[in-house]
Amino acid sequence: MEMKAHKQAHTKQGHLQGNLVIVGFGSIGQALLRLLFHNIEIAPEQVKIISADENGQNIAREFGVAFTPHLLTEENYLAVLEPCLNKGDFLLNLAVDVSSLALVDLCWRRGSLYLDTCIEPWSGGYTDRSVSVSLRSNYALREKALAFAREKGEGPTALLAHGANPGLASTFVKQALLNIAADTGMKVKKPVSRVEWAELASRLEIKAIHIAERDTQIGAQRKQANEFVNTWSVDGFVGESLQPSELGWGSHERHWPLDGARHGFGCDAAIYLNRPGAATRVRSWVPLGGSYHGFLITHGESISIADHLTLREHGKVVYRPTVNYAYHPCDDAVLSIHELAGRNWRLQSSKRILRDDIVDGVDELGVLLMGHRKGAYWYGSRLSIHEARRLAPYNNATSSQVVAGVLAGMVWMLQNPYAGVVEPDDIDHEVILEIAQPYLGELVSVYTDWTPLQDRGWLFHEDVDGADPWQFKNIRVI
Amino acid sequence: MEMKAHKQAHTKQGHLQGNLVIVGFGSIGQALLRLLFHNIEIAPEQVKIISADENGQNIAREFGVAFTPHLLTEENYLAVLEPCLNKGDFLLNLAVDVSSLALVDLCWRRGSLYLDTCIEPWSGGYTDRSVSVSLRSNYALREKALAFAREKGEGPTALLAHGANPGLASTFVKQALLNIAADTGMKVKKPVSRVEWAELASRLEIKAIHIAERDTQIGAQRKQANEFVNTWSVDGFVGESLQPSELGWGSHERHWPLDGARHGFGCDAAIYLNRPGAATRVRSWVPLGGSYHGFLITHGESISIADHLTLREHGKVVYRPTVNYAYHPCDDAVLSIHELAGRNWRLQSSKRILRDDIVDGVDELGVLLMGHRKGAYWYGSRLSIHEARRLAPYNNATSSQVVAGVLAGMVWMLQNPYAGVVEPDDIDHEVILEIAQPYLGELVSVYTDWTPLQDRGWLFHEDVDGADPWQFKNIRVI
Ligand SMILES: NC(=O)c1ccc[n+]([C@@H]2O[C@H](COP(=O)([O-])OP(=O)(O)OC[C@H]3O[C@@H](n4cnc5c(N)ncnc54)[C@H](O)[C@@H]3O)[C@@H](O)[C@H]2O)c1
Ligand SMILES: NC(=O)c1ccc[n+]([C@@H]2O[C@H](COP(=O)([O-])OP(=O)(O)OC[C@H]3O[C@@H](n4cnc5c(N)ncnc54)[C@H](O)[C@@H]3O)[C@@H](O)[C@H]2O)c1
Repeated sequence: MEMKAHKQAHTKQGHLQGNLVIVGFGSIGQALLRLLFHNIEIAPEQVKIISADENGQNIAREFGVAFTPHLLTEENYLAVLEPCLNKGDFLLNLAVDVSSLALVDLCWRRGSLYLDTCIEPWSGGYTDRSVSVSLRSNYALREKALAFAREKGEGPTALLAHGANPGLASTFVKQALLNIAADTGMKVKKPVSRVEWAELASRLEIKAIHIAERDTQIGAQRKQANEFVNTWSVDGFVGESLQPSELGWGSHERHWPLDGARHGFGCDAAIYLNRPGAATRVRSWVPLGGSYHGFLITHGESISIADHLTLREHGKVVYRPTVNYAYHPCDDAVLSIHELAGRNWRLQSSKRILRDDIVDGVDELGVLLMGHRKGAYWYGSRLSIHEARRLAPYNNATSSQVVAGVLAGMVWMLQNPYAGVVEPDDIDHEVILEIAQPYLGELVSVYTDWTPLQDRGWLFHEDVDGADPWQFKNIRVI
Repeated sequence: MEMKAHKQAHTKQGHLQGNLVIVGFGSIGQALLRLLFHNIEIAPEQVKIISADENGQNIAREFGVAFTPHLLTEENYLAVLEPCLNKGDFLLNLAVDVSSLALVDLCWRRGSLYLDTCIEPWSGGYTDRSVSVSLRSNYALREKALAFAREKGEGPTALLAHGANPGLASTFVKQALLNIAADTGMKVKKPVSRVEWAELASRLEIKAIHIAERDTQIGAQRKQANEFVNTWSVDGFVGESLQPSELGWGSHERHWPLDGARHGFGCDAAIYLNRPGAATRVRSWVPLGGSYHGFLITHGESISIADHLTLREHGKVVYRPTVNYAYHPCDDAVLSIHELAGRNWRLQSSKRILRDDIVDGVDELGVLLMGHRKGAYWYGSRLSIHEARRLAPYNNATSSQVVAGVLAGMVWMLQNPYAGVVEPDDIDHEVILEIAQPYLGELVSVYTDWTPLQDRGWLFHEDVDGADPWQFKNIRVI
């Protein structure tokens, strides 16, 4: 792999002529630099990092990249960023707490390219009690971005939410659909439009899709009391964990969740539950770990995939899969969430992101497509910490999967610099998969006979829908 | 403490003339021997251990005690145990999977004393799907024991469920009631009957009592995949975790749990929830850890304390506190339960009890009495692993608390050898506290303004009863 990465460094995947401004330089930013310079023709002098703290400054220096500590706010971001962005420049948003929509708008006006790994609000937006639960959702953030896109039409490419998940998850779903079609003897051409992808999913009778992730990475030092530990941004993870739980709501669903609500505006592809994702558990399955309970944390891909795979007839939805994230973070993060819940969601005073002190573990990150003829199919990346370290420095398995998505998104953008505002689901998944693959470890394809009804109710009566395993009612842990 | 223990070894607390048969020699049995010989006049030749496996055989040898591996079953236990038990002998049941009631009956017939640390059924009883959920409860097991006691009346003492919790928890509650009375300027004499204790609790307006335990012990090696780790019996813990969640049901409760049920027989002091305790979380508080989420695992003391503190007028219940366990086991056990839930309660294939590889941690085990004039009051044992190791070998903090209860119960029994079948709540708590105290580390008394309504609902609407913080509805995590 290392060799392959080196080889790629020689036959670069893309060329950036303008400047690259990276906002935020935490676990993902630091993980990216090696891949960036290996794969994209760009000189260190073209790159400028702006980050709220000095974390990673030595790594920037090692790569010869300028680093300016600066905390961006709604008040100062224009003054700071506008001078750095001109036509053909590229703004890469790898920060937490910086509004994606503000930066999209700025880049649009400056003629610059834009990529981020999730649609984020300004600091505090996820827990702003002055707005409704619905407006603290990813659904609302995405609807704002879609409205911007509709209003503006053509323009410099802004690729929203293109990391691993959101990001590669949409790519995995498309490849998984093609794989299942092939494996079930269905002759299909690669779909070329949104409707064709939805038709394929519908023909395959996909009822539910999980982004099914289990991270088993462990550090040498355990989580301490009053500490939140994770393998990527603690702030990012806690932020989304305290947003309402959200899921794309499939057309086959016949049991409305008691705490569920529709937004009443926008595409209507997703609903939210009136509780934080960190307090919502679902049943899912990954190849190595088997069946597990994961957290139904809201994620952009749960909404965008469900929306893109929606089929309408005469304006009425006739097909949509249920799509949700089922996240089993690393053990110390499970304990961190348990402690956070006991603290009534008041964040612990210490935070720690595991990287160099990780001793072992794997991030199994894929998509589980359920309800087709062969039952359930998991497709995705299985990457160990050891393999991730071989691929690039300053990485763990999780960050490597994320920067693979970022890099692939950047390369696609350099090939398509005037595509307007796009989501991962809008773009050519084959290009993405090809660029990302070297950094994903093993790409695993497995069919399983697992269903959420398997082995249920043997000890206590459980209220399940025995007629259709793929109802969300069966997936959810009550 | 070590010195004090030594001193006690010289002025022994009791004298056993007959033989002592110990059934089961796991984490608790192994922890007990040093305390036993330090505190009770008994020669190693009088002691005989019968255990299903050879675990701990070297420890038995070190103390000069005979050890026979033998798996007891419903079919063979009489043949094995009857010959060892005569008048004045003592049977100490520290096994899992051996029916307490069978052994109580046997001891009764043989004129032998009997003590155990929980009322257990034969192997498989906790998950026997051929009987109703109600009959898999501790409530049902206790009712059978009470029926036996009523039927037999006087006889050799059989002290049921006298470890730490159940066991010392009942002692702590009594001492806590006296302490709160003193601290609120209420003049009381030490109650001498069940009714007087209930009257005291009622006068103090205790609405809810938690056995509030947080164990922070950690081992050098983390929990592995497919492994259940705990600081005491994995089989014992998993057994009770898969019983229905049970709690003593207070007279102030005005919100019936949707999944709650009454048994329809017996004392009616407790109810059960139609789900395993391992899937039921409650809010509670301990002095070092602060507010936390614990598991509402069924325990004998939740039922016996509630029953003993019940006041009736003309047959009608006029006062009873809600009593429940709120267990935060060690971190690796929290992860083990999370994994077990994901496996639909099919036990992991490896089990590990942490003892010699523990590197740090404290077991805070006490009772939290809520609703009185000063709010909430925690009273109990705070014992670190380091202190536990100073007190006796082959211990961790948890086992030390348990064997303190076992030892104290034995001493009380030697002073009261003809008391019939009794529960921890029936006996003189001052004797128990005095004997147990040297092995409990610090006895901690703390008032707190914590309530389960504190800091709730700031992010999402939560359905609480704001008029009475001490409703179980507010305690339970939904
Ligand atoms: N799509 C995916 O697969 C995926 C995966 C992981 C992370 N992410 C996202 O990537 C982003 C970065 O994650 P990370 O793990 O590197 O986070 P991190 O917490 O490690 O670092 C965050 C960075 O943002 C900077 N920052 C915070 N506030 C800022 C402000 N106001 N102005 C400028 N900089 C600011 C910090 O200084 C820090 O460098 C987050 O938004 C996270 O949610 C996406
Ligand atoms: N009240 C309390 O505070 C408290 C606390 C901890 C444990 N306990 C109870 O104490 C008991 C022992 O706990 P532990 O941690 O030592 O358990 P453990 O799992 O470490 O050991 C159990 C022992 O029982 C023996 N055993 C199992 N089946 C048997 C059979 N059929 N016949 C004979 N022996 C058999 C095993 O060989 C082993 O020696 C359990 O019932 C547990 O629930 C009570």
